[in-house]
Amino acid sequence: MSDYFKKSLDIHRYLRGKWAIKSKVPLQNREDLSIAYTPGVAAVSNHIAKDKNSSYLYTMKGNSVAIVSDGSAVLGLGNIGPEAALPVMEGKAILFKEFADIDGVPLVLDAKSAAEIITAVKAIAPTFGGINLEDIAAPKCFEIEEALQDIGIPVFHDDQHGTAIVLLAALINACKVTGKDIKQLKVVINGAGAAGTAIAKLLRCVGHDEAACIPVEDVLVCDSQGIISPDRSDLNDEKKKLLAYTNRHNRNGKLLDALSNSDVFIGVSKGNLLTGADIKLMNKDPIILAMANPIPEIMPDEAIAAGAAVVGTGRSDFPNQVNNVLAFPGIFRGALEARATRITEAMKIAAAYALADAVNHLAADHVLPDPLNRNVAQKIAEAVKQQAIKDGVQRPL
Amino acid sequence: MSDYFKKSLDIHRYLRGKWAIKSKVPLQNREDLSIAYTPGVAAVSNHIAKDKNSSYLYTMKGNSVAIVSDGSAVLGLGNIGPEAALPVMEGKAILFKEFADIDGVPLVLDAKSAAEIITAVKAIAPTFGGINLEDIAAPKCFEIEEALQDIGIPVFHDDQHGTAIVLLAALINACKVTGKDIKQLKVVINGAGAAGTAIAKLLRCVGHDEAACIPVEDVLVCDSQGIISPDRSDLNDEKKKLLAYTNRHNRNGKLLDALSNSDVFIGVSKGNLLTGADIKLMNKDPIILAMANPIPEIMPDEAIAAGAAVVGTGRSDFPNQVNNVLAFPGIFRGALEARATRITEAMKIAAAYALADAVNHLAADHVLPDPLNRNVAQKIAEAVKQQAIKDGVQRPL
Repeated sequence: MSDYFKKSLDIHRYLRGKWAIKSKVPLQNREDLSIAYTPGVAAVSNHIAKDKNSSYLYTMKGNSVAIVSDGSAVLGLGNIGPEAALPVMEGKAILFKEFADIDGVPLVLDAKSAAEIITAVKAIAPTFGGINLEDIAAPKCFEIEEALQDIGIPVFHDDQHGTAIVLLAALINACKVTGKDIKQLKVVINGAGAAGTAIAKLLRCVGHDEAACIPVEDVLVCDSQGIISPDRSDLNDEKKKLLAYTNRHNRNGKLLDALSNSDVFIGVSKGNLLTGADIKLMNKDPIILAMANPIPEIMPDEAIAAGAAVVGTGRSDFPNQVNNVLAFPGIFRGALEARATRITEAMKIAAAYALADAVNHLAADHVLPDPLNRNVAQKIAEAVKQQAIKDGVQRPL
Repeated sequence: MSDYFKKSLDIHRYLRGKWAIKSKVPLQNREDLSIAYTPGVAAVSNHIAKDKNSSYLYTMKGNSVAIVSDGSAVLGLGNIGPEAALPVMEGKAILFKEFADIDGVPLVLDAKSAAEIITAVKAIAPTFGGINLEDIAAPKCFEIEEALQDIGIPVFHDDQHGTAIVLLAALINACKVTGKDIKQLKVVINGAGAAGTAIAKLLRCVGHDEAACIPVEDVLVCDSQGIISPDRSDLNDEKKKLLAYTNRHNRNGKLLDALSNSDVFIGVSKGNLLTGADIKLMNKDPIILAMANPIPEIMPDEAIAAGAAVVGTGRSDFPNQVNNVLAFPGIFRGALEARATRITEAMKIAAAYALADAVNHLAADHVLPDPLNRNVAQKIAEAVKQQAIKDGVQRPL
């Protein structure tokens, strides 16, 4: 780890960051200038002035996504501010380029409140075909994303939905491996922040036509105090909202009470939380997705020794890495191809099924594709694009 | 011209714009990912969290400039809106890259009022080492630029100052060619918008220590009604401000009255405004900088036939092209190299003298370098950087 730290510091300093721009046209002579810039460019501006939507065809808009953060919840580092968040957003931008040929633009904001971030994103929206919100603290991330759903381009908080989509894909395949029925899973999510909430929503098909979705019926969400239940008096507004679609039997108790007789543990919490004995409380062939970074809630060997059938983590040095890079490039590529005005719940679910489907040679230690697999984004993109068209969120041209 | 229009439309559509991003680091294997992104990048974020200014060394900030427009005054096309302005901003961005290796980021804003634009620019400022304001209508461009001078990075409205700097460089060299004394020139500026006002300010050393500057003493500014004078009752606030530093003898009259016995005509107005007979009203060896686009205020041949000693236009098909690309790449490169917190008046003047100095083989038809000359930006950058250090606007590291 410390080796990566040193190498990363060195290369960032040597190159002065990781991100650069380039011209797609030559600029060698007067004719080049006259075509790329004045006077020629006036024809392009005039064309778009008459038909605003054609900016998707004639400008960077159709291929670019802003990666927006205020630096309030960066990696495991917390509220480190916009400047310190910039290396992460540059990393995201080059992943967009590498995996989906999308031109990602890091934008770290000096904006404290949800209202300020909303105003800033609305202002810059004409430039981009989509907005990837990143590393913004809960609960303001929920308010921000919701307020921006109608601005005419997709606004997608990757820490929520990217994670949820990869997680759902892992769960779909883990069910195939274990023979479990996804609808009848008893799922425990530990962590009630941005990712935990989004996972619960996606599993429960919240905001989505249930006819086209398979809601997992039994989902419990825990925070550090235990199961989120109606009997608790310490819940904030966001946690109260969880009660509408989780904990159908109004159960109370601690994490271990929740775990008892469950099928799936999803950890978006902190490392070294569970032991093999805890895993043994669960139903036969439990599925463990322990995504705390860098130390998972339980180490894979310990979970497997205790009977886990499938174990995934956030780490690249174990099988089944739950890594957002499996989802966001393809999702935005599909949304851009459709000139989508938003990313619907059905598009997220389509992305998860396409991702699950991208696994060849499915096995307990291979329920997700390798994050470096270059074919995944394209498969997701096609599914997302088709779903956008079905959902009627394609911008006409 | 129509040939350029067609070619420009075709190439923009074929390539979907001119602007793209690229990664400066490889992303081929797990180690690459671990260095460029997690976990390695956390070390870089941590480093910057402790020393915000180090973002100039470790991220894109130290090499990037946002090119911000609301699309309210684009080329000769007027208020065509942000989407239609985007091709122009992309053009600007690739010129930044080509001439100064700066990573320019087009940002077209859905923001109507000056206040909204100010808010948006403040919000995005942590990402960038500088802000190039572009194609924003007068008078709001003045208010916006002024309000943003203390945000900690240079904010420079190119339509004002880029034009004024190139113009001053042309005038410095035209004086060498004609043997005129720049201080004693009688200058007429036709056009009291953003560019005209900025030219008047720069020639008059407004906001600048006069000891280090040579103010042109006699400057008249005209608008469509004639000379801006204290006797006029139709002046808006911005035009009233011009009275503080132009028209020292309180002259009244039309453009031709102003032109009579003047040395320099600077046109930032509209085409076909003057005839040879008008030029003959001027002093011997008049200097004509007729920058209306695409048709200058007077065509070069007609001006020369009427006795003009030096003629410049905005066009690439005549000598002495007054083109902002001669200035902005070098100015921002110098400002970035210095990690300047602002661009001072002295830095603008240093840029103009460096630009004038970059001309080899000075002659009446060669008072400015060729816009495609690759050595100009570097010379300006060095002068601007040194002046930033002298002026104490270098951000410490």
